[in-house]
Amino acid sequence: MEGQRFDGIVPADELRDRLTRLQEAMRPKANGVLIVQKTDLFYYASTVQQGWLYVPAEGQPLLLIFKDYQRACRESSWQRIIEADSPKALPSLLAEQGYRLPEVLGLELDVLPANLFLSYQKIFGDSRIVDISTDIRLLRAVKSPYEIEMIRRAAHCSDQVFAKVPELLAEGRSEVAVAGELEGFARSLGHQGIIRMRMWGGELFYGHLLSGAAAAQPSYLASPTGGDGVSPAVGQGAGLKKIGRNEPILVDYVFALNGYLADHARIFCLGELADDLLAAHQAMLDIQEEVKQQARPGILTGDIYELMVARAAEKGYDQWFMGSGERRIRFTGHGVGLELDEFPFIAKGQKLPLATGMVVALEPKVVIPDRGVVGIENTHLVGSSGLEPLTTSPDTITFL
Amino acid sequence: MEGQRFDGIVPADELRDRLTRLQEAMRPKANGVLIVQKTDLFYYASTVQQGWLYVPAEGQPLLLIFKDYQRACRESSWQRIIEADSPKALPSLLAEQGYRLPEVLGLELDVLPANLFLSYQKIFGDSRIVDISTDIRLLRAVKSPYEIEMIRRAAHCSDQVFAKVPELLAEGRSEVAVAGELEGFARSLGHQGIIRMRMWGGELFYGHLLSGAAAAQPSYLASPTGGDGVSPAVGQGAGLKKIGRNEPILVDYVFALNGYLADHARIFCLGELADDLLAAHQAMLDIQEEVKQQARPGILTGDIYELMVARAAEKGYDQWFMGSGERRIRFTGHGVGLELDEFPFIAKGQKLPLATGMVVALEPKVVIPDRGVVGIENTHLVGSSGLEPLTTSPDTITFL
Repeated sequence: MEGQRFDGIVPADELRDRLTRLQEAMRPKANGVLIVQKTDLFYYASTVQQGWLYVPAEGQPLLLIFKDYQRACRESSWQRIIEADSPKALPSLLAEQGYRLPEVLGLELDVLPANLFLSYQKIFGDSRIVDISTDIRLLRAVKSPYEIEMIRRAAHCSDQVFAKVPELLAEGRSEVAVAGELEGFARSLGHQGIIRMRMWGGELFYGHLLSGAAAAQPSYLASPTGGDGVSPAVGQGAGLKKIGRNEPILVDYVFALNGYLADHARIFCLGELADDLLAAHQAMLDIQEEVKQQARPGILTGDIYELMVARAAEKGYDQWFMGSGERRIRFTGHGVGLELDEFPFIAKGQKLPLATGMVVALEPKVVIPDRGVVGIENTHLVGSSGLEPLTTSPDTITFL
Repeated sequence: MEGQRFDGIVPADELRDRLTRLQEAMRPKANGVLIVQKTDLFYYASTVQQGWLYVPAEGQPLLLIFKDYQRACRESSWQRIIEADSPKALPSLLAEQGYRLPEVLGLELDVLPANLFLSYQKIFGDSRIVDISTDIRLLRAVKSPYEIEMIRRAAHCSDQVFAKVPELLAEGRSEVAVAGELEGFARSLGHQGIIRMRMWGGELFYGHLLSGAAAAQPSYLASPTGGDGVSPAVGQGAGLKKIGRNEPILVDYVFALNGYLADHARIFCLGELADDLLAAHQAMLDIQEEVKQQARPGILTGDIYELMVARAAEKGYDQWFMGSGERRIRFTGHGVGLELDEFPFIAKGQKLPLATGMVVALEPKVVIPDRGVVGIENTHLVGSSGLEPLTTSPDTITFL
């Protein structure tokens, strides 16, 4: 059990395919794209070493590395990799390597900090800068067979983590003590620890292990569940509450393997649960089943959201579906891949249609103030006949 | 051992002092500051709930919360807390609450993403926007007695983590399996998991548990040590290497309690180490001792750096001090507080003088390619007679 290593280096043909798609997408709007953000850099160059990938609208990309160059050369199959001292050197290095400076330069303006943006504006003074982030996110939403295999492996590890939970739960243990042991077990399977989110200020530490009323405690996070956290400085996740009998225990954890994520939630209980909680859980499983059939390529993600909200209301859960009150979450699922908040969002008003190869975490949940959370989350692959769950532990509540 | 909770809510008089200092600092350059970043928001409002703290150059601040409002009201002692639907509503909400819109508005441009910056430019169309981040970082560099107590508590927990290491180390165990168990133990003491860094793209998952040659493997991170990591997607930290006999094992871990960090590194060994490694370790302890005496309020941080580099060279370690090659790290210490990369930096060319109440992690290390890392890191309080270590486990190598 001490680690299942795949080397995690992105194959060369995979990188070439990704490059081709990016070049096709950029041509109508930019002559070149400079990729700086860590996740995008890994996606397009198979390395997170500090540097820049310059992608012209036609031809070969250039990987410029500040630190560590040798490591980047081992990790990335791109042929053109050079050292770069500082961002100021980028235009001259590009020129030396035979690249024309772009009239329009695409940058990841959704994540690039303002001071860096202002500094790139000066460095590329003759280029007009445009935001390329939405294009990149749309491209990354559809996973290749290689990526699907990576997410499948992450999901398989996640199944092992969930099989471990019953050994660790005991009345009177704190949420955070159980969380720590479960997380240590996940690390022994090769979990990378870091879970990346794209949205600024989004943070997640493995996920949420929350019991009873604590699970229904809302937080700043764009998530139906919050939790106490160990202090206001984190304000989410497992806290010091002792796990009790006859309350729903939510384990909503992300497994991160070779960069790729699988998102997965189950309910456990020491003892038994009131009938209305059991019924609410079953209602969420029923909604999941219906969506698994309906969610085929071409259907609008906003329509799936509305279907789920309508079904939850019909079943009597409109008040508590995905949270309660004005700030309840207006999504029921989200894409996962290298980041936890990828396209598509199964969310109010979303016009993006599902496509074969998208991977979505679907999470119908009922959040009852002062009592807790029931429901389900699985990571699914979008296929021609609907959703195929990649996380496969039993959807039913585990009673201990 | 199941968690030591202090409630972690920042006291009201502490918030008022911080506000006064920020208002004094902003007056020469801005009429108001809008704080958005999570760490700054916690520092100035005692909450990380999603929202904005508007601080006028004179008078009371206004905390505007999107989610979760009730939670922010419980966590923050500010009197004026209102709900806000979206950033677009900010100018009208400020006006309704009797605030004049600022001619010059300070924002945290070092961390705020470009698209948000461009959107705030439109929303505050009549204000000129300036960067307030350096001012905030300078203010946060000097810790209050309350903050020093919080860091002392984090350091005390860190000492307990380091006392646990010998129980977990065994020949043939992988770095990441040992790391996972140690991290689980840290969680049981109340470790918050998340370690915040200010620099964009900076990531750290607890720290570095690295053995032998793997510890000398450089990475993208602004740190003398890198490590294999479990895959190129993370590219740092513990990997799948098996821990061996007669090699230095570096444990460089951060304890995060109630938002506050203590940074701490020690060397362990199963068996014995070659004499040159023992001598190198002792040399780093000697440099630490000298700096502890010399590093008094008023001395320039750049001068401390030069002193350390000169001493390392005299002792014969110029080739391997703080890394090897062109991209070795040009700092020997850094401020710690709510973030791991706070002011001051004990770094080349730094003009900032030390001041009473600063807290710095000082980390003289020798990094020998293909062999490993020896040296030390402690978190120190700057006092009138030099540095007081807050992390207090024995500085010597622990042989097992």
